[in-house]
Amino acid sequence: MSVLHEIALPAVEPDTAAPLVPRFEQQGYDKNAIAARRKWIEEKTGTDFVHVASCSVPGEQMRGNIENPIGTAQMPLGVAGPLLVHGTHANGVFYVPLATTEGALVRSYERGMVTLTRAGGVTTRIYTDENRVCPVFFLAGVAEAHEFAAWLNENFSSIKAEAESTTKHGKLLRLEPQPVGCEVVVMFSYYTADAQGMNMIVKATERACQWILHHSQAHDFLVFSGLSSEKRSSGNLFAGGKGKRVVAGARLPSALLQNYLHITPSQLVHLWHHTILGHLQAHAAGYNGHYANGLAALFIACGQDVANIVNSSVGITNFELVDQEDVYVSVTLPSLTVATVGGGTAVGTSRECLAMLGASGKGGAPKLAEIAAATLLAGEISMAAAIASGEFVRAHDRYGRNRPES
Amino acid sequence: MSVLHEIALPAVEPDTAAPLVPRFEQQGYDKNAIAARRKWIEEKTGTDFVHVASCSVPGEQMRGNIENPIGTAQMPLGVAGPLLVHGTHANGVFYVPLATTEGALVRSYERGMVTLTRAGGVTTRIYTDENRVCPVFFLAGVAEAHEFAAWLNENFSSIKAEAESTTKHGKLLRLEPQPVGCEVVVMFSYYTADAQGMNMIVKATERACQWILHHSQAHDFLVFSGLSSEKRSSGNLFAGGKGKRVVAGARLPSALLQNYLHITPSQLVHLWHHTILGHLQAHAAGYNGHYANGLAALFIACGQDVANIVNSSVGITNFELVDQEDVYVSVTLPSLTVATVGGGTAVGTSRECLAMLGASGKGGAPKLAEIAAATLLAGEISMAAAIASGEFVRAHDRYGRNRPES
Amino acid sequence: MSVLHEIALPAVEPDTAAPLVPRFEQQGYDKNAIAARRKWIEEKTGTDFVHVASCSVPGEQMRGNIENPIGTAQMPLGVAGPLLVHGTHANGVFYVPLATTEGALVRSYERGMVTLTRAGGVTTRIYTDENRVCPVFFLAGVAEAHEFAAWLNENFSSIKAEAESTTKHGKLLRLEPQPVGCEVVVMFSYYTADAQGMNMIVKATERACQWILHHSQAHDFLVFSGLSSEKRSSGNLFAGGKGKRVVAGARLPSALLQNYLHITPSQLVHLWHHTILGHLQAHAAGYNGHYANGLAALFIACGQDVANIVNSSVGITNFELVDQEDVYVSVTLPSLTVATVGGGTAVGTSRECLAMLGASGKGGAPKLAEIAAATLLAGEISMAAAIASGEFVRAHDRYGRNRPES
Amino acid sequence: MSVLHEIALPAVEPDTAAPLVPRFEQQGYDKNAIAARRKWIEEKTGTDFVHVASCSVPGEQMRGNIENPIGTAQMPLGVAGPLLVHGTHANGVFYVPLATTEGALVRSYERGMVTLTRAGGVTTRIYTDENRVCPVFFLAGVAEAHEFAAWLNENFSSIKAEAESTTKHGKLLRLEPQPVGCEVVVMFSYYTADAQGMNMIVKATERACQWILHHSQAHDFLVFSGLSSEKRSSGNLFAGGKGKRVVAGARLPSALLQNYLHITPSQLVHLWHHTILGHLQAHAAGYNGHYANGLAALFIACGQDVANIVNSSVGITNFELVDQEDVYVSVTLPSLTVATVGGGTAVGTSRECLAMLGASGKGGAPKLAEIAAATLLAGEISMAAAIASGEFVRAHDRYGRNRPES
Repeated sequence: MSVLHEIALPAVEPDTAAPLVPRFEQQGYDKNAIAARRKWIEEKTGTDFVHVASCSVPGEQMRGNIENPIGTAQMPLGVAGPLLVHGTHANGVFYVPLATTEGALVRSYERGMVTLTRAGGVTTRIYTDENRVCPVFFLAGVAEAHEFAAWLNENFSSIKAEAESTTKHGKLLRLEPQPVGCEVVVMFSYYTADAQGMNMIVKATERACQWILHHSQAHDFLVFSGLSSEKRSSGNLFAGGKGKRVVAGARLPSALLQNYLHITPSQLVHLWHHTILGHLQAHAAGYNGHYANGLAALFIACGQDVANIVNSSVGITNFELVDQEDVYVSVTLPSLTVATVGGGTAVGTSRECLAMLGASGKGGAPKLAEIAAATLLAGEISMAAAIASGEFVRAHDRYGRNRPES
Repeated sequence: MSVLHEIALPAVEPDTAAPLVPRFEQQGYDKNAIAARRKWIEEKTGTDFVHVASCSVPGEQMRGNIENPIGTAQMPLGVAGPLLVHGTHANGVFYVPLATTEGALVRSYERGMVTLTRAGGVTTRIYTDENRVCPVFFLAGVAEAHEFAAWLNENFSSIKAEAESTTKHGKLLRLEPQPVGCEVVVMFSYYTADAQGMNMIVKATERACQWILHHSQAHDFLVFSGLSSEKRSSGNLFAGGKGKRVVAGARLPSALLQNYLHITPSQLVHLWHHTILGHLQAHAAGYNGHYANGLAALFIACGQDVANIVNSSVGITNFELVDQEDVYVSVTLPSLTVATVGGGTAVGTSRECLAMLGASGKGGAPKLAEIAAATLLAGEISMAAAIASGEFVRAHDRYGRNRPES
Repeated sequence: MSVLHEIALPAVEPDTAAPLVPRFEQQGYDKNAIAARRKWIEEKTGTDFVHVASCSVPGEQMRGNIENPIGTAQMPLGVAGPLLVHGTHANGVFYVPLATTEGALVRSYERGMVTLTRAGGVTTRIYTDENRVCPVFFLAGVAEAHEFAAWLNENFSSIKAEAESTTKHGKLLRLEPQPVGCEVVVMFSYYTADAQGMNMIVKATERACQWILHHSQAHDFLVFSGLSSEKRSSGNLFAGGKGKRVVAGARLPSALLQNYLHITPSQLVHLWHHTILGHLQAHAAGYNGHYANGLAALFIACGQDVANIVNSSVGITNFELVDQEDVYVSVTLPSLTVATVGGGTAVGTSRECLAMLGASGKGGAPKLAEIAAATLLAGEISMAAAIASGEFVRAHDRYGRNRPES
Repeated sequence: MSVLHEIALPAVEPDTAAPLVPRFEQQGYDKNAIAARRKWIEEKTGTDFVHVASCSVPGEQMRGNIENPIGTAQMPLGVAGPLLVHGTHANGVFYVPLATTEGALVRSYERGMVTLTRAGGVTTRIYTDENRVCPVFFLAGVAEAHEFAAWLNENFSSIKAEAESTTKHGKLLRLEPQPVGCEVVVMFSYYTADAQGMNMIVKATERACQWILHHSQAHDFLVFSGLSSEKRSSGNLFAGGKGKRVVAGARLPSALLQNYLHITPSQLVHLWHHTILGHLQAHAAGYNGHYANGLAALFIACGQDVANIVNSSVGITNFELVDQEDVYVSVTLPSLTVATVGGGTAVGTSRECLAMLGASGKGGAPKLAEIAAATLLAGEISMAAAIASGEFVRAHDRYGRNRPES
């Protein structure tokens, strides 16, 4: 094991010539390489990595998931449940792993889950299940762009064959051209099975774009245009195509709501009405209490691509009175991006957390999506109840110890 | 140690009566309680928690950060650098901890950091540093709401005193009323020092709201209205008030850009131009390549509230030609939410990662904010270069091993 | 002719009992009724309606377009041209009628039109041509909503038959369900020929909804859900479906640009780059200089539904360098709503203005759409040039006499 | 009177050399010039301008409002009322002029007005009254931009003096810098008295920008950045600063609502709840039924800048139950742009329509703003009631004669 090389540098100011992180043979994933790298950083920065070093995941298992590894970050992991789900893919009682450092969060989700379970459970459904890449093609002018858009659809089967030649699992579902002047953004929508699939479908799309470039009037392309809204929020996400569109809902009787959450259906709807007005004034994308909290905790626990919480947390929570007595509560997630194959799903604690949900590997992704939606619904009713009943501050005082004021 | 209690239940279907996660004395943060809880879950779900159990953080240290703990989730941790920063708070060379399972990400950020450092470093500045809570007050009618808004400003000093009576660190900066019909949303903006501060300022705001309720015409209030855009994306974030407004920029000479990133300034600007068109079509909030990636990795490493990446990742990346030869690159983050006190910042690996940046505890938050902005800039130029040069797919083929297709 | 009736009133405060506008036989569209009504208003308000009374449109021609008529509003009407268009529907040179009171506007559009014409003309294309209504259906729960969405597509032909039974011209193209919890919004997309068509397709959709209500599990519906974005701006408009998606573009040589607009291609692109950053910060829907100005002037002249400028003015202007010398300029309008049949298109000056464009009646709407897009392109380059060259204030000083400061 | 000149042209294709609209001495506003121009267009396009020619407004009165005039466009004008308003500026009963060709619109607004009046009237209030221009300044880097932002505030009084040196009425209220990388957008907010004021404040701002350019580190500027959202919709409008923030509200007893609008308070709130969900899915800016309709009709009648309906129609309608029996209805308009001085306000029918409202000239603008808000509220409750009660299609069948299907 040895430091192999650094990029050759001209004579420069010391700071601009600061050394690279050490390079090792085979990229340095064995135990010694990781330790040597960590030691180098410890010396550079004067830090003592006791916890970072206490990592149970073998270095070689991290290959493909990280570069320049020095250990693992540890995030406290709790469980919330029971959560009774009646879905197409998820059926039964679940205990959900949540990794977070936000005090009161697990307790709050648990409270919501118990309420939903005692009320008979959460019904979940998936409407669409796809992912997309949106390259942009450049044409000579508006007329050529218009012809190109027509040409695309005429050549769909050839383009599909090219795209799918790079993948066993990805299926190109359709092409949708969207012009801007003399360029045409094309939405490539794929089914990606249990993978989040971005690497898969970017590769497939680039192959297809190269074919298009050689067979059409387009004179150039960029494989990304920004339209796909991967890892960002946008109004476009409601139209679908980024991830799974999932809905979860339950009907809650007034007595149960008051017993478990200490509010009436009317109070819940009152809160909904007035906080939606705030969202409108903020011009937020969608409306929800705190999807991002539940998704972040679940995604970290289950080895998901955590940055996908940005697109996944766009959605709509609805509370409405039914027959003046009960309340129907629901969450609608137009762009939930989850995976049980690829990415970080097989690494250490992720594999264990997915196993805990019975959602590992093949066939697991739709199940995980339904559990995620049901989990978010629990978080929504619990937080809403805490605000509406005035318990929010009290609960955080009780459970959130690590506040700076204590 | 023993299972203490479960909520009493009527006779119901077995599934709806599913058992609670076991309760323990003192909430169960000692080693045995955590092990017993973990064992209970293992039996319930048939999972073997080898990695989750291999947790180096003492259970009592998790109190206030999680409930129902069973161990920790581990996320691979790598380092990227050197990153030379010329900020008001961050000055010098940094090596940045990034926790992720997305292969190629650390390598990509590292490449951008080396480029920026060799070019002379990144300049960073903070414009505003605050956080807000936006309660909504209910009045009898439009006339009363209008009077209430005027009354608020006349009583600012009393309201400020009430709010600040609950906190040593939070300072109420101003009140801004925003009416909707007969209700008035009021933006309470605070300085929160090195804490993210939501718990702190929600508590302060609730106290102030109670005082307002007793001294004004308002007949009720909700402590949240949704306007604050905490943990969500919104158009309103650009107007400021949620977190720190931070800017990072650098001028890159053409030769250096071609040497390190294999593209010309014109190619970079071409990419910017056409991907901004895609963002516009998506009606995204702001424009950037992948802030969410860098923020997620940095936030997990440094014990930040990960859900805050949703508001923090709203911002604008700009690439523009200077003197036809160079390119000026920048990121602008209107609502970056980081902390070095409170929350998860003192727990295990988080404390070590903050120490590695010299950004622990008091005075650390503005420094962390500037490092974060500089890190995102590195990610933006590296990703943009990869797309513009056609290297994107190749890089992910090389570093992203755990794709399902391999 | 006589005042027929007023709604019977209880004894109330004089103000709340204020009289209705007089009622007349047959709704009062004959000359005497209009004069009597006008006289009544003159007396009530102490106004002398000299200009309002000098109306050349026969009263009976207003029936179906207005109630309680007292005459016409007059808006100054100018012409701008020549505008050379190479479209699918519009081909040749046009002189465009613009009704406005904003000084300098006609001169500015004219300047842009001359520039475009001298450069060889504007190419225009229409991608999609449809309009939509989006009713919302209520179901018992999430599972029933999911079944309902599937049921809809299975019954498309029956639903189409019902919808089309109410109209000779409207064609139902497709149904797209979009769920929110236990309700399902359904986009009904129609081809409406040369009519704007909202009345037509709302009627068709209501008929279809009644059929659906009787044949499905839905227990109620509202014919509007707000999703259609009729007469409002939204991010969703870029996805298409509201009106015509039209593109207009032209390539402008540097010399011509400097000669007519006094700027270089680089200056134009510089302006684009920096004003798009402002739009992003505002979280505007799309990017353009002032589509609303041109559309308002053209819509008033041509008897369009003027409120439709809100959805129609969402779009993207693009300026980009070509071969370092020229600039390609374009406008992209995803939701342009124009008509040449129905509404105000046959009334008085509207009919004359449409005739002036050769775009009256059947087959006229796509032609009008292409002329509108080309007109907006003229306005975009002219305004951008005025700003970039610093001539903006000077031009308004010269042409805008009626400013309050003179 | 004679055709004076055309721009000299090189030898080109006939179409690209198409003739300019004829030029006349003194820009051609006298009767003969207008007639000659009209005749020229009639011959060019084969149109007979009977109605356009029947224009009662003297040509010279159009100078400063239009170029190349050929007459006036006529729009049917009706009146709706009585509308009882309790505002700060508007007090009493009004009959409101509405110019439209959309059948049923006047009747619908009238119905809403009568309902509001019989219920005791509409309360209106204005919160802020300003307009803004947002130039962008270019600096060498992020550090210089940060210094520039600080410098701006230190020099406010000098900048204010420069800006106000160009205007008798405009008052510069404040400067708010918003950085993007190495540039700084600056919001210049003004009070503009009774004028819409864009020409006034653009001129003032340009003067100030020139002064800033000579006294600061900024090396260039553009007088517009796009942030101001003039004549466009954006999320930023809710934060205020573009036009008047106006609120109108009323409490409606259940019996009256059922008597006049044939619905119950609960039905109205039910409609609100479900159409707001549609707006959220569309990512619309704000929520309202059809502000654009009422504003277009009022703006055309009263000589407003019609393109301003795009920013003015952003807002929020709220319906909420009060004491289970009544409903409180309101409209909130954060960016209403109206004027009673300058622009088209003194031309022909505009002057008469403003006179009819007692809102001409000095002091009229706030009154017009309150009447506009009250008018929109009438339109909101009437349309909502029509949809909720299922009368919408029936009403349009009765009043909307000029539909193509008849």
